[in-house]
Amino acid sequence: MLIRPIKTRIFKANKSLDKFILRYLPKVPDRSIIVITSKIVALSQGRVLHLADKIKVIKQESDQYIKTKWCYLTLKDGHWCANAGIDESNVESGGIILWPKDLFKTAEKLRARLLKKYKIKNLGILITDSRIFPLRAGVTGVALAYAGFSGLRDYIGTNDLFGRKLKMTKTNVADSLASAAVLAMGEGAESLPLALITDTVVKFRVKVDPRELAIDPKIDLYRPLFARLDSRRKR
Amino acid sequence: MLIRPIKTRIFKANKSLDKFILRYLPKVPDRSIIVITSKIVALSQGRVLHLADKIKVIKQESDQYIKTKWCYLTLKDGHWCANAGIDESNVESGGIILWPKDLFKTAEKLRARLLKKYKIKNLGILITDSRIFPLRAGVTGVALAYAGFSGLRDYIGTNDLFGRKLKMTKTNVADSLASAAVLAMGEGAESLPLALITDTVVKFRVKVDPRELAIDPKIDLYRPLFARLDSRRKR
Repeated sequence: MLIRPIKTRIFKANKSLDKFILRYLPKVPDRSIIVITSKIVALSQGRVLHLADKIKVIKQESDQYIKTKWCYLTLKDGHWCANAGIDESNVESGGIILWPKDLFKTAEKLRARLLKKYKIKNLGILITDSRIFPLRAGVTGVALAYAGFSGLRDYIGTNDLFGRKLKMTKTNVADSLASAAVLAMGEGAESLPLALITDTVVKFRVKVDPRELAIDPKIDLYRPLFARLDSRRKR
Repeated sequence: MLIRPIKTRIFKANKSLDKFILRYLPKVPDRSIIVITSKIVALSQGRVLHLADKIKVIKQESDQYIKTKWCYLTLKDGHWCANAGIDESNVESGGIILWPKDLFKTAEKLRARLLKKYKIKNLGILITDSRIFPLRAGVTGVALAYAGFSGLRDYIGTNDLFGRKLKMTKTNVADSLASAAVLAMGEGAESLPLALITDTVVKFRVKVDPRELAIDPKIDLYRPLFARLDSRRKR
């Protein structure tokens, strides 16, 4: 698997993401995945606020929230994240960038348009952000949405090395790719908001199920730890 | 960043990990990271049990545990994981493989020996396993231990694109690399228990702090959700 981060100029709010990608990735081989940081997706959607009441916006933007000492721990589009994904880094002074909207639809539409431009058969789009894993310092990348490939690889029913049937194993392909790409793209002033992944093991497909990585909270491994949250649902 | 999974024969319990690695990776360029699945590290340590009382072993091996409908949710060496990392896949019939022991020491010793063999200056070792992220289907890779590079990249005090100082940002380098490598290595019968990462952005160093990725549970983002666990500590 080869992950190549792409150096660009600064992306401006309300500009075309298609043009930006085509400028910095004029040619893309078949079976590539184009990785795009959520920040420039949000910027292309004009999801920038100035002089906003940040706390109010966090509450509006989140599906559930809990105030902590450091930030709001929020549930947003099925992800646990800080402050509903609202971020002040890499935005002009006084601005805050919101989490992008219509994530899977945006990825799919972008894929359909770029596929034609590149004249290839298989293309993946992956929109990434960063997240915190319980008990771990530092952020790792996460897939907010994707198009053109399966986000999950299912081993159930296949044999292991000793011929035993695997009963539970599935791999979260989309987040694994996102983690590596976000590391390569960086979190500071690297100016690498795009990356190209080639030579990887994903299954390319036309339609993806936007719910395939969302697990029913009732069967979540962490359910016993999260159970108390139920009594704190947002009004 | 280039991640190359390495096809091998089946690793046998109590065999030398050094010889195995040197056989399949006879030459390694300076500034490489050798990724090793925890399963073969555990096997090299003889951490295999036959005909054991699995539930009893899970309880013995875990620092904290909670019974769930599907498995035990356990705290082990600072990680939330299922069944204290005990696994029955890819082991001969009737056997269970335990989580490896002395993880960071094992990585460091292996690094010291291999560095000499390869006659290079910078070498990283990364021992990986899989984990579940809250609310997400499928597993992603995680770093159980590493040696030779910083597991955390600290952006605090550096400037973002608009000259604003970053106050909070750190990247979890070790888990990001592990996620990508585990995806490339697979979870089934691929027989790819090693991977080589080159051309990546890590900071190579002789000494690493085994605690740098462990966050004080008191300041964990997920603290409000996990709080009830305190009353359920292992006897």
